[in-house]
Amino acid sequence: MRRALRHPARLVPLAFLAFILAGAGLLMLPVSTETPEAAPPLTALFTSVSAVCVTGLVVVDTSTYWSGFGEAVITVLIQVGGFGIITAATLLGILTVGRMRLSNRLLAASENQALSLGDIGAVVRRVAVITVSVEAVVALALFLRFRYYYDFPVGKALWYGVFHSVSSFNNAGFGLEADSLMQWVTDPFVTAPVTAALIIGGIGFPVIVEVLRKSRLTRAMRGDRRRRPIPGWSVHTKLTMVTTGVLLAVGFAAYAVFEWTNPATLGPMNVGEKLWAAFVAGAMPRTAGFNNLPMADLTHETWMVTDALMFIGGGSSSTAGGIKVTTFVLLAVVIWSEIRGEPDVAVFGRKIPGSTQRQALTVALLGVAIVAVGTALVMIETEFSLDQVLFESISAFATVGLSTGITAALPPFSQLVMIVLMFAGRVGIVSLATALALRSRHRLYSFPEERPLVG
Amino acid sequence: MRRALRHPARLVPLAFLAFILAGAGLLMLPVSTETPEAAPPLTALFTSVSAVCVTGLVVVDTSTYWSGFGEAVITVLIQVGGFGIITAATLLGILTVGRMRLSNRLLAASENQALSLGDIGAVVRRVAVITVSVEAVVALALFLRFRYYYDFPVGKALWYGVFHSVSSFNNAGFGLEADSLMQWVTDPFVTAPVTAALIIGGIGFPVIVEVLRKSRLTRAMRGDRRRRPIPGWSVHTKLTMVTTGVLLAVGFAAYAVFEWTNPATLGPMNVGEKLWAAFVAGAMPRTAGFNNLPMADLTHETWMVTDALMFIGGGSSSTAGGIKVTTFVLLAVVIWSEIRGEPDVAVFGRKIPGSTQRQALTVALLGVAIVAVGTALVMIETEFSLDQVLFESISAFATVGLSTGITAALPPFSQLVMIVLMFAGRVGIVSLATALALRSRHRLYSFPEERPLVG
Ligand SMILES: [K+]
Ligand SMILES: [K+]
Repeated sequence: MRRALRHPARLVPLAFLAFILAGAGLLMLPVSTETPEAAPPLTALFTSVSAVCVTGLVVVDTSTYWSGFGEAVITVLIQVGGFGIITAATLLGILTVGRMRLSNRLLAASENQALSLGDIGAVVRRVAVITVSVEAVVALALFLRFRYYYDFPVGKALWYGVFHSVSSFNNAGFGLEADSLMQWVTDPFVTAPVTAALIIGGIGFPVIVEVLRKSRLTRAMRGDRRRRPIPGWSVHTKLTMVTTGVLLAVGFAAYAVFEWTNPATLGPMNVGEKLWAAFVAGAMPRTAGFNNLPMADLTHETWMVTDALMFIGGGSSSTAGGIKVTTFVLLAVVIWSEIRGEPDVAVFGRKIPGSTQRQALTVALLGVAIVAVGTALVMIETEFSLDQVLFESISAFATVGLSTGITAALPPFSQLVMIVLMFAGRVGIVSLATALALRSRHRLYSFPEERPLVG
Repeated sequence: MRRALRHPARLVPLAFLAFILAGAGLLMLPVSTETPEAAPPLTALFTSVSAVCVTGLVVVDTSTYWSGFGEAVITVLIQVGGFGIITAATLLGILTVGRMRLSNRLLAASENQALSLGDIGAVVRRVAVITVSVEAVVALALFLRFRYYYDFPVGKALWYGVFHSVSSFNNAGFGLEADSLMQWVTDPFVTAPVTAALIIGGIGFPVIVEVLRKSRLTRAMRGDRRRRPIPGWSVHTKLTMVTTGVLLAVGFAAYAVFEWTNPATLGPMNVGEKLWAAFVAGAMPRTAGFNNLPMADLTHETWMVTDALMFIGGGSSSTAGGIKVTTFVLLAVVIWSEIRGEPDVAVFGRKIPGSTQRQALTVALLGVAIVAVGTALVMIETEFSLDQVLFESISAFATVGLSTGITAALPPFSQLVMIVLMFAGRVGIVSLATALALRSRHRLYSFPEERPLVG
């Protein structure tokens, strides 16, 4: 265990791969489908990858194709995938950050760093408590609505509550209805719990823990009545919270402006419904991927904004995908510092080290490269338009699961491209970022500096 | 003059703006058009911007719309635009690099640095000598072909030789025929001089000077017969030469592979013609913009590779546009160093300072942002597809001038968007990059470091 944790960049992808294959095996059993025939291997693999990587893209309709057993398998895959991701990412985050604190000498520390089993247990317990608490509250809220307003039988209401709660907190985006959440678009009693769950799940566990620990309420409950100033949030938490707020606002504004009069989406609603539906729809690209509006009928402008929001994604060490909001905002801060001619890159009164800047650059540009190659490959095999294929590739890479409708129609090779995008986007970026931070090397000499022209 | 050069980031855009307005004024005279009516202001402005920024996008056909006088105005605009860019960029490059040598303390030096008038004169003379030499050789080669193979009258052959020579060395991409170079696609005696001129013009003046100065031939001519080892090229020159070679090979391969059987492009040719036409076509995206093949009929895969090549563009301080090959390759080096876990970012045995890395990041990501916003604005106003609009926006921003055919059909607001893209892409990136390098500031305190999670 200790040895393996020294190379978590290898451990995590292997664990996910094993889990995906096990899930695909279960989904290939005849009992997993509604019909007597078993699912073809590619369909089972695609569904398993999509579930474990909490993406939500589907090549077959979840409710009509898979049996109750199949749906239960998918639920478990989502829950374990989401839990595994959040835990792995958090552990790796602690490994990385912890190392920084242990030693100022970035490089010397990396060889001697390993987590104790006690640390791991504490992290896993905390993640589990938060996950179960949020999911239970959301599932209860949904159950009450489904049972007492829509008059579902108790069992079905419970199942719908639990499934949608798990799917939304883990930002998986799988639904039980063929139209995802569209039939409830004007019912805030369904969409509000779902949206709250996906935003909390997408904030990231380190941020949740820090916010909870430093809140007035928590301190009051602990009996800490001293009126000393609250210790400030870390830069990571500040960046995540502020950027999340800004991106939610951008998504809301884009959907409101570009869809306001679209007869296929917001057009027929009243003003209050339009505003609420736009807010919910604007929260989905990061990166829950339910749809409350028909994605195929959105304007091309909405697609482009959604592309950007999906690519950015959610918080680090969260259930959300994408390059992560801190990656995005750090790059923006670097650019701003350069334009202003600042000697250091600093934000919220803290200097951002050059190595973190380079990590952000690497994650973002590798993301661009992966999406570009995936898009090109699908363009070569199919006749879909660039905006459709780009949307679908970003949705897979950022594990969003929104679809313009082409995924179900993709030929086998393009399905494999999507599978690779989902896996790389979910597992690759986490372990890549960590591998970047951990595998630093010594070099016993230093090169002289030279300054090429750029731009 | 000395005062102005301390703020070249302001001087250069203003000079270009003045020049563009003067050109637009001349093109609005009735004598500039073939018909008695004068050109509308927007058409004249678009053409002037396209010429001064050596882009080559046109809203009217150059040969049939503009009179001989109008074409002469365009030639002068191209030549002065190209010369001005190369000179300004070179001067700014010297300012930047010179400052680095004067002092190790990056920030302290910036206040006291200014070029002497003698330095400026020497730079301008050298640029002029190289420009005129290359253009004269190319014009002569073209003249001979047009006069003695195609039997043009002497005057017309001379005019075609000079115009295409100026247009290609300056990577302007304006042609005198409605089909650009397409009728000569299988004639290497026309396309080879043009391609040689645009590659040399797009390498960048600092690289040309260094290569010439350090070549065996030059040393032999100077009577330097000592057999001492040739001093190595600078990292800038090595990066530019290697990357230019790689990008030319990528362009060649993409056009050969994706167009080989396309009946509208390479399909009907024999193997030798296909290979040559693919090489010439693959050189155009960086960023000459003539077409020897009908761009509207290319496969979508070719469009996507062309998008990437156009965005990267040519060498720094050259007549080519784009984010520049050194910017691109430096970012690749940063990513490679991160993946390998190197403590420093180094290439060719030289360390690349963090400030240069940040400049490259800033230029590239601002380029992405400008192109994305331009594309979105045109998408909102028009009904063209995303791949068409993206291609045209990159072509404008990188001052390439290749077109899928939609520029002539753009409504007024979208034409203005293209004008801004051309201006920002040409003038903005040069002065931006310089502004970034020069306007460094002191800060008398330093923030403590903090390391947010990314990815
Ligand atoms: K998702
Ligand atoms: K051009």
